[in-house]
Amino acid sequence: MKGIGAGSIIRRKKDGGHECVTDEVAIEEPLEIRIQGRAVATTMRTPGNDEELAAGFLFSESIVRTRADLKKVSAVNDNVIDVELAADVKFSPVPAERFGTITSSCGLCGKASIEFIRQRFPLIDFAADPTRITETILLELPDRLRRGQGNFARTGGIHAAGIFDTSGQLIVVREDIGRHNAVDKAIGRAFLDGLLPLNRHVLVVSGRSSFEIVQKALAAGLPIVAAVSAPSSLAINFARECGQTLIGFLRPPTFNVYSHIERVAF
Amino acid sequence: MKGIGAGSIIRRKKDGGHECVTDEVAIEEPLEIRIQGRAVATTMRTPGNDEELAAGFLFSESIVRTRADLKKVSAVNDNVIDVELAADVKFSPVPAERFGTITSSCGLCGKASIEFIRQRFPLIDFAADPTRITETILLELPDRLRRGQGNFARTGGIHAAGIFDTSGQLIVVREDIGRHNAVDKAIGRAFLDGLLPLNRHVLVVSGRSSFEIVQKALAAGLPIVAAVSAPSSLAINFARECGQTLIGFLRPPTFNVYSHIERVAF
Repeated sequence: MKGIGAGSIIRRKKDGGHECVTDEVAIEEPLEIRIQGRAVATTMRTPGNDEELAAGFLFSESIVRTRADLKKVSAVNDNVIDVELAADVKFSPVPAERFGTITSSCGLCGKASIEFIRQRFPLIDFAADPTRITETILLELPDRLRRGQGNFARTGGIHAAGIFDTSGQLIVVREDIGRHNAVDKAIGRAFLDGLLPLNRHVLVVSGRSSFEIVQKALAAGLPIVAAVSAPSSLAINFARECGQTLIGFLRPPTFNVYSHIERVAF
Repeated sequence: MKGIGAGSIIRRKKDGGHECVTDEVAIEEPLEIRIQGRAVATTMRTPGNDEELAAGFLFSESIVRTRADLKKVSAVNDNVIDVELAADVKFSPVPAERFGTITSSCGLCGKASIEFIRQRFPLIDFAADPTRITETILLELPDRLRRGQGNFARTGGIHAAGIFDTSGQLIVVREDIGRHNAVDKAIGRAFLDGLLPLNRHVLVVSGRSSFEIVQKALAAGLPIVAAVSAPSSLAINFARECGQTLIGFLRPPTFNVYSHIERVAF
């Protein structure tokens, strides 16, 4: 499998003895994303679905907004991908230094960024989009995500992101060593398939939810974000301000709701 | 506590009922690092120990190499820190776009980067520095790290990095929402205290070990890196090439050794 590598290691066993075994690990390699030959970002990712990663990344940075904005995505080599924009897409790189920073996995530059992002993407209004999910389906999502992951999960070093509809049907699941990359790949797939905005859908992530996760979800119009682990303070504040329902520690039979509980049908 | 915020949330209980409780979460906020007024990086971090974070970051980027290179670190405000270099330190920013990318949590730009990093930092030679750690002490480190963490660990959303000597004594432990920041803070503390290089020491991280973790350890001269979770393929390859002992899944009574087992005394 493309994203997993194997090698010989020494393992200390429970009985205190040692054995030499073949172990599987998640592959980590750099991917440079270029726009018409110009490098705009480099990310450490698990190889595979690089076209989706590039599309999802450029979408969440609002460089492309519709499927038609993205003319062509092509691999230059295993670690470089080039994106050709449609002729009418204005791409004016922000000052390079700042842009380079934005493109890191951190996703944010400066205290005013929540305001800035809220200006780029519409808030999610429950009155206009009364998406709801039942507790029963919500509690099934972690297991459905794991089953969708397949063999990757066994390395223990991989993040998963899945997009589900509110009936619990899996639309797409993607995995990556970087949590933000897994989300970019999943949203990128939906973008390439012309499925955006993803109102009436749920983003489920296998780990924690940081600011950048809820920001990418907002870009895609996802009203509900559910994470198996903890949210950060900024993820909570952002979700509250942007109208998103944020769920954390989704570990059946329990979970926490951090914002906009009106979308959970009890 | 500075790094933890609290808020009211709705929790679904095991019995299917719900309660409104006060929950603690790890604080996530941006920090912009400036060199003499010029922004060079922004990272999402947990506030606190920002001076260490800036020092550790600039050290692992080899912008400062010795304690004397760093004249002054001062907070501009809660989210901006400015570093003044000694007069004789040459700081020629690499092209901004590229630098911005390097400063992300990804830590790597392009396939040639292992070579590049190996040129900047000396490899760790077991013949010259025969650091060894006993299995007994190694197996105690996760528990010692947790005890060093204090209350932070309870949020479930925080990474810890600890530096121990080979007798198992904790030198410094730092926590952050970003794993790379926790390592930068721990190494930054040691840098500010004039303790580098940290040969005969061990870096212990509470999560996974990616490329950037072993790279930062190499910069600090740390011959042994032990992680509670999985390593990435690139972390393993890097550690093998650079002479570091990489231990993963350190979960007593078991662990895996991925490289340079000669430093583990059985």
